[in-house]
Amino acid sequence: MLRRSLENRDTQTRQLQDAVTNVEKHFGELCQIFAAYVRKTARLRDKADLLVNEINVYASTETPHLKQGLKNFADEFAKLQDYRQAEVERLEAKVVEPLKAYGTIVKMKRDDLKATLTARNREAKQLTQLERTRQRNPSDRHVIVSFEFSLKKYFVRYAVQK
Amino acid sequence: MLRRSLENRDTQTRQLQDAVTNVEKHFGELCQIFAAYVRKTARLRDKADLLVNEINVYASTETPHLKQGLKNFADEFAKLQDYRQAEVERLEAKVVEPLKAYGTIVKMKRDDLKATLTARNREAKQLTQLERTRQRNPSDRHVIVSFEFSLKKYFVRYAVQK
Repeated sequence: MLRRSLENRDTQTRQLQDAVTNVEKHFGELCQIFAAYVRKTARLRDKADLLVNEINVYASTETPHLKQGLKNFADEFAKLQDYRQAEVERLEAKVVEPLKAYGTIVKMKRDDLKATLTARNREAKQLTQLERTRQRNPSDRHVIVSFEFSLKKYFVRYAVQK
Repeated sequence: MLRRSLENRDTQTRQLQDAVTNVEKHFGELCQIFAAYVRKTARLRDKADLLVNEINVYASTETPHLKQGLKNFADEFAKLQDYRQAEVERLEAKVVEPLKAYGTIVKMKRDDLKATLTARNREAKQLTQLERTRQRNPSDRHVIVSFEFSLKKYFVRYAVQK
């Protein structure tokens, strides 16, 4: 029963490791591409700001009617850039930063898994030792019970940690 | 009367020259900045396409529910990129190209102005010559009338060309 439970846990650990590796890989990629997307948006906003300036400069050299039309267009276009600026800030704060935070989260999960793996290996060793003891001295009840007791303590502690 | 009309035309020519120079300068600037704006938009669309791909790749490694959500987001985001592509094409065709065409238009206007200027200078020379003739031989009606006639012909031809 103990051996089967250990094997189960082995599979679980491997699944968790795969999940962590997967998230690490894809969240890293997503974070980079989102950051690049934000940068390109910011550059588009910069170009649009240049355009607004140039239209205003040109408008100031023109006749009143055309000037008014150009200025109106420049004003509306400038408002669009304000929205673009808000988009940049929001993407930075709500998408890129949280994705970046996953770098640390993934590292913590890896450490957790490593601790689990160490504990699991220690358990497996003790289980092997227990069975060897059982085979050698089947009548030595005292030693076997004491071993089983300490192993169960391990499992309980491990389960609480989880 | 002829001299005043020539001076008037002088002012007009100068105004036209200034207008052409102004348009040449600002339309050139506008064309460049609009073209840069279009390029930045195209780059933003490229980054967004990368993002759509990466989200789809990540979605395919995830559990059905999350996968569906991610795929839906990627699809909507991809549609936005189609609109962005349309924006790029439309700006290119309806803004950048017409602005570019002004390069040729400005050149033609400059040539027109140069022709006008040459004609004007020729007229001014002939006018000076006419007045000199008038002062030298005030009684030589025949030469003066012939001169005035040829000058008027000039003006008429010039007016028709305009």
